[in-house]
Amino acid sequence: LLLNFVLAESALELVPEGMRRSPAVVADAKRRGKEPSMILLDRSFHHSAMERLEEGEKRGRPDLVHQALLSVTCTPLYLDGKVRVFVQTCAGLTLELEKRTRIPKNYIRFRGLMEKVLMERPGGGLVKVFSASMKELVRRTVSPDEVFGLSVRGERMKPEALASAVVAARNPCVLVGGFPHGHFSKETSATIDRLIRIEERPLEAHVVAARVVYEVEKASDVTND
Amino acid sequence: LLLNFVLAESALELVPEGMRRSPAVVADAKRRGKEPSMILLDRSFHHSAMERLEEGEKRGRPDLVHQALLSVTCTPLYLDGKVRVFVQTCAGLTLELEKRTRIPKNYIRFRGLMEKVLMERPGGGLVKVFSASMKELVRRTVSPDEVFGLSVRGERMKPEALASAVVAARNPCVLVGGFPHGHFSKETSATIDRLIRIEERPLEAHVVAARVVYEVEKASDVTND
Repeated sequence: LLLNFVLAESALELVPEGMRRSPAVVADAKRRGKEPSMILLDRSFHHSAMERLEEGEKRGRPDLVHQALLSVTCTPLYLDGKVRVFVQTCAGLTLELEKRTRIPKNYIRFRGLMEKVLMERPGGGLVKVFSASMKELVRRTVSPDEVFGLSVRGERMKPEALASAVVAARNPCVLVGGFPHGHFSKETSATIDRLIRIEERPLEAHVVAARVVYEVEKASDVTND
Repeated sequence: LLLNFVLAESALELVPEGMRRSPAVVADAKRRGKEPSMILLDRSFHHSAMERLEEGEKRGRPDLVHQALLSVTCTPLYLDGKVRVFVQTCAGLTLELEKRTRIPKNYIRFRGLMEKVLMERPGGGLVKVFSASMKELVRRTVSPDEVFGLSVRGERMKPEALASAVVAARNPCVLVGGFPHGHFSKETSATIDRLIRIEERPLEAHVVAARVVYEVEKASDVTND
């Protein structure tokens, strides 16, 4: 088994050009000794500047991306090299983690790393960054035989049943939204074969990711001893 | 069901008195515009100052505590008021979350909150702080009929079986270590009735917590619809 895990439309980006003179952004950048163009958009600090931002309710949550990535990358399944992780961002960039790569557990270190790779866009190494539409990422890079999207709008399915379907696929891909509110865009939805909900209420991305990976791990017998 | 969840010997404390003049601590406090006595000990920034610290390998990881708390407090079981959360610290203090209390998802906000409550030690409210030995916390405050400790040194048990045992108890208590390396102290071990491992290899506290709470949730049927 190799599980392709995509955190889709993730709320991870550098402060966009039109916002770099906003007082909240300028003050935050100054406090950190950086240029506004070099820092991550973060609702915790730039809330007042984000009011008129397009799709603003889905953006500026690097903390959410961090937690979701930790919930995947600290699992036995990932540590065994059985998960390929992509972070597709709302800004049209995709980050791909080299297999088994550990990300910084401290958020401040993670933020620094993300700022660096989003600025430099390395074409290789532990975190690779490339530009691709969601369709290109899924159809060309991942090229799965089945894409499972997790959403409260999906059909109700027990996580165990989802995991069985994932394990039964030759090259499965699971999409979890990397944003705090709202739903998958039309473009993302078009790449999904089966839209599934594992819970009645909306859950944080890191909870969904942790549960899906755990159930896939159980279904694939990796850790059964 | 009411699950008592204790993050034990957690790596969460203000910078201890003997370290407040260390260059790494002074520089970090200055950067943050705070006194050294007012900031959390954090290995990401105070590593060089922590070399000679007693039990240093178990301390200074507020990020780990944050992730473990998020992995519990974002679950349906917790949101339904079925989990009582305690953070028992290496420094002998215990934090108790009021039922259903949400903690800040951004680490920097969480750090600020923890610094505030560890300084002020509120006796009530959303986060209560009190001084208690591990034995006092477990025997007096929680007063469980069975204490399950999670550790790689424990007997191997499937998480599902652990969850069944937890749900079968009248007032169950689960202890997960809130530290990055090492094992439960003698004092903590003495409060544990059953020491269990759910995985062969050591796992991060947030992964163990997420899996145990999820399995208890399934075993208690809270979300089965």
